[in-house]
This record gives sequence, C-alpha cells and structure tokens, in this order.
Amino acid sequence: MSISGRKIALILSDHFDAEEFNELHNCLTEAGAFTAIVGADAGQKFQDWSRKAEVTVGISFEEAHSYGFDAIIISDGYSPDEIRMNDAALSFVKDMYDANKVVGAIHHGAQVFISLGILKGKNVTSWPSIAVDLENAGATYFDEPVVIDGNLITGRRPADIRAFCNAIIDELERLSEAAA
Amino acid sequence: MSISGRKIALILSDHFDAEEFNELHNCLTEAGAFTAIVGADAGQKFQDWSRKAEVTVGISFEEAHSYGFDAIIISDGYSPDEIRMNDAALSFVKDMYDANKVVGAIHHGAQVFISLGILKGKNVTSWPSIAVDLENAGATYFDEPVVIDGNLITGRRPADIRAFCNAIIDELERLSEAAA
Repeated sequence: MSISGRKIALILSDHFDAEEFNELHNCLTEAGAFTAIVGADAGQKFQDWSRKAEVTVGISFEEAHSYGFDAIIISDGYSPDEIRMNDAALSFVKDMYDANKVVGAIHHGAQVFISLGILKGKNVTSWPSIAVDLENAGATYFDEPVVIDGNLITGRRPADIRAFCNAIIDELERLSEAAA
Repeated sequence: MSISGRKIALILSDHFDAEEFNELHNCLTEAGAFTAIVGADAGQKFQDWSRKAEVTVGISFEEAHSYGFDAIIISDGYSPDEIRMNDAALSFVKDMYDANKVVGAIHHGAQVFISLGILKGKNVTSWPSIAVDLENAGATYFDEPVVIDGNLITGRRPADIRAFCNAIIDELERLSEAAA
C-alpha cells in the first residue's frame, strides 16, 4: 500500500509551528505524497511563531480548487486563528469536506471547522484549550492522539503528529482501495 | 473623578502582545491606578510573541485572591489560550466576576470567559476570529470597540485599546461612587 502521487494541500498562515510542520511534511513526503503549501496568496512568505523559519505559499486558496487535491491538512502555530477568518480558505476547506476528500487538522486546526459550522454530532480531538469551543459547536471531544470521524481526521498536539500523519495516510489508502 | 489608588490585576501569560499591553499599562497608570502583573508563578518571565519584550510576574494567581484587587484585565497576544487552561487563573477570574469587580478582556481575552461558562445571555465583543466561539457559548457578539454588560467589559482589538481602557476607568469610577 502506498500514497505515492497523492496530492496533499498543507494549509498555513503566519506564526505557524515549524517543528510540527516539518515533521508532518517529512512524514507525508516519505510516504510518497506530493505536498503543496496553500495559503492566501501565491508567493506570500510566512514565518513560524519563533521567527526562525520561513515558508512560501505555492498555491492560493482560490487556485487550489482546480488542482485535484486528495487531502488537506490544517496545521498549527497560530495559523488557524487567521485561516478561520479568510473566506477563500473556508470555501476551499468546505469544498474538500463536501467532496469527501480527507480533511485533517491538528492542534488548534479544528477552529477552522467551528467557523465552517460542520461539527454538530462529530467526534474530534484538538489542543485541550479549545475543547470547550468544539463542544459548544456541537462536537464530542476526545482526549486522544487522533480521532477519525468520516473524512474528518483530527490530531491533539504536536507530540501526536506521527499518529496523526499515519491516520491521514491510512485514510488515503482506504479511499484509493474503495475507488479501485 | 479619578481611579487613584485602585488596584488592577493585569493577567498575562507567554507570547503576550507587547504593544497592546504597554498602551493599556500607560493608560491605567496615567489615571492613577496601581497595576500588578498577575500570572502562574511570581518571578516567572514572559516574552511577547515577537520575542522582543519581557515582563515579570509580580503576584501568582493563588496569592492574588488576597490582594483586594478592584479590577482584572486579560490582555492578548496568545496569552488567553494558556490562561484558559490554568485552573488557578480560572478560579481567580471567577472569584472577581462573582464579587462584581470589574472584569475586562480584550482581543482573544474573552476565550477565558468561554472556559468559565459565564457567557450565556451576555453581550460581548472580541477579535472577530472567536466571534463564533463566543456565540456558541451563548453570548451575543457585537462588532464594536467596547461592549459593557454588567461588570464584564470586552474590547475588540489592539486598535480599540484606548476606548477599552476608558470604559474600565469609567466603570471603576461608577462603582466607587455607588459605594461612597
């Protein structure tokens, strides 16, 4: 089994968590996936929250719809706080969710799902500070490394990044087999 | 009218917003208030999110109960995300709220009120990213510089800091007159 050639959109904004992002990126790349950094504007540069690392956006949210992505992952730092206010970002995430693509979020990433209003009756995890926000949005919160509910995959915290990444890979493989 | 000698607890954690904090501190000090930095441990040092400024905690949350504070203010940066998970912080904020002291929060500060579960039926403002979280917690959100509901005073964003600070001062004066 492999996810070679599957296309994954890594959604970022400023003040991202470089360590978490690098581990996620390495894990997906080692599994053979193509990854792209998707953000507000192509060419835009983001710094991590410690101001030591930098990434450049390859594809804007508007353009991303036409790239045939198989999965999106919202990672952390303080990115989700900005992404949840960006209408183009919300539109892209919602399209992927509605198309039953793999939609992942780790740490504070699930804040974006609150803003989309898609959490009623869903099982999720996240950084514990926002557990109450997820519950108020209608979700059931689990203090576990990874929670899978349909095509929604949530991870708890940076230390759980490997388990989260493996769940994303498993789900992509499962969907490939189902389509084969 | 004056708030000379009134004691105000400025609640902070790591990655605070130095510009917002300095403006708030200056505004209160110019009005004659005593301010103290209240955090998890006395002597603890916090850096602002740009890692350029530093403050030291004067009074811990546990000790703060006995200092006779007249008001508390939760300011921003990424502090509220940490403060809302600190039981000693939540206990201090709740005690001040229940004792009808002035309880203020600006920017993301109102996240702490969500974690306290005190927002049902309340009118509030905040940084717009968490408007949906405040509404899911039972509050009504207003896109205004400052919203006052009983002893709960919320400010929208750093640019509204003067209006927010003036509302805190007005409310302290009002309570002084009521008590006189």
